[in-house]
Amino acid sequence: MQWPEKVTIKEVGPRDGLQNESGEVPLEDKVSWIDLLSEAGFSYIEFSSFVHPKWIPQLKDSRAVAERIKRKRGVTYAALVPNRRGLEAAVDTQVDEVSVFMSASETHNKKNINKSIEDTFPVLEEVVREAKLEGKSVRGYLSTVFGCPYEGNISTENVARISERLFEMGINELSLGDTIGVANPEQVDRALNKWKQWLPFDHLAMHFHNTRGMALANVLVSLQHNITTYDSAVGGLGGCPYAKGASGNLATDDLVHMLHQMGIETGIDERKLEEAALYIQQVLNKPLPSHQMQVINKERV
Amino acid sequence: MQWPEKVTIKEVGPRDGLQNESGEVPLEDKVSWIDLLSEAGFSYIEFSSFVHPKWIPQLKDSRAVAERIKRKRGVTYAALVPNRRGLEAAVDTQVDEVSVFMSASETHNKKNINKSIEDTFPVLEEVVREAKLEGKSVRGYLSTVFGCPYEGNISTENVARISERLFEMGINELSLGDTIGVANPEQVDRALNKWKQWLPFDHLAMHFHNTRGMALANVLVSLQHNITTYDSAVGGLGGCPYAKGASGNLATDDLVHMLHQMGIETGIDERKLEEAALYIQQVLNKPLPSHQMQVINKERV
Repeated sequence: MQWPEKVTIKEVGPRDGLQNESGEVPLEDKVSWIDLLSEAGFSYIEFSSFVHPKWIPQLKDSRAVAERIKRKRGVTYAALVPNRRGLEAAVDTQVDEVSVFMSASETHNKKNINKSIEDTFPVLEEVVREAKLEGKSVRGYLSTVFGCPYEGNISTENVARISERLFEMGINELSLGDTIGVANPEQVDRALNKWKQWLPFDHLAMHFHNTRGMALANVLVSLQHNITTYDSAVGGLGGCPYAKGASGNLATDDLVHMLHQMGIETGIDERKLEEAALYIQQVLNKPLPSHQMQVINKERV
Repeated sequence: MQWPEKVTIKEVGPRDGLQNESGEVPLEDKVSWIDLLSEAGFSYIEFSSFVHPKWIPQLKDSRAVAERIKRKRGVTYAALVPNRRGLEAAVDTQVDEVSVFMSASETHNKKNINKSIEDTFPVLEEVVREAKLEGKSVRGYLSTVFGCPYEGNISTENVARISERLFEMGINELSLGDTIGVANPEQVDRALNKWKQWLPFDHLAMHFHNTRGMALANVLVSLQHNITTYDSAVGGLGGCPYAKGASGNLATDDLVHMLHQMGIETGIDERKLEEAALYIQQVLNKPLPSHQMQVINKERV
């Protein structure tokens, strides 16, 4: 079996993690936490989202976060933007990269963005164009690519078609999201075999959730397809404990541990990563669900 | 990628699960639970262990369990036996198969069996010979094959050497245990590549624990090596929540879910499996750690 020697992990905890946590995290704690993540060796941190606070109150302080974090050389600080207005606010705080998002499922896209997939393209096109004019690179998120809570199966052809449209707009990287954590290794293998005909694998990232415990197995399949970029959140943040079907992100600490054990480089310092996980665990005041944190929490009893 | 179309799952929850649970399970609940497992479609259930109750009080009622469970046609009911005395007690209750065990680590073997590896062979030899005379098939367990809590790394050559000795004694199957859940996919791939020169893969089972969340990824690697038998415990039973480094078995429900999603047959009915998991969860009066049970428990809140 073969896998890459080096992998890039993009930390999405401060955005995708916290936006799904019910607890509020004070601004200064967010800043300290993100600074700890910078110190841990990540080359990419998605630190917040410039969406209307009505939709995601947990991230209402994105501007302040952007202004106060220590920006470490070599780290890309990125933020999610839903539209042109969000882009302008993000650019204003001198983010390094912005992310745009849509869903591969018509129903999920309508529920989240209030638009059909077809009507979403022109909005994103404008954001990508403007971002490029501002000299920002752009990441695309495509969610529910392996299954949708409303529609069930999602066709791999549709995913490829939408992905191609996003690359045509000029996005620099596309993150394919298993938003509800239903992907299985056979499905990931089959999908990647199909997508490799159309999509540039060196500009793809995989974004797994761990609802059914299969996220690391799905990473393993993706590694065998030579995909080298993975999204994850420290401690497995992001699970909404009382919502049906909701689940945490793949835990960065579990992912880094597996990759390092396999001899795959990430550039991340496991001890400092643990420090960052313990920090946000204390702020949220609840045990984080990652396996690494479970082991650590047991040892500390 | 390729994997087998059909896999055998051996349920070890009533033995390997319960022996590591601090709570006592009343006899009638054990019996009802094992009967539910039989109904769920397992072809193999390790229902208990005939060891001295001083060592494992949780399993002191093995004889009564053996006498009271409903034995379903086509199911192999197996029990662990540490020595000849245990074997005789097990044979007395007409078990279908017995399991013998030792460790691939000298220190772990001494701590568990109070003998060196070399001195363990004659004891097991006698048990295997006697079991065969009684017409019983014998399973061997070799523990800590991917790492030992005392010695760290375990050489794959030593594992092969001990395994060969066990097969020479006449065991019908060997279960290779990642007792403390440290194996990673690269290591499993490397080890299996080595072992396939010496060991009969159609008589091997893999026994993973999920301490670091890598168990399903390790199963995936083993499937790619065409190993078709896996041990697991319903709900991920067996984690001792307050012991350093201890961890639950790979959860049967997570394993079955992944395999079925991949289109791999197991013969197990997921709905009935869930029933069995809910039953033992209620008896133990604590949430079981498997991902399937976490999802179910959330839905029931």
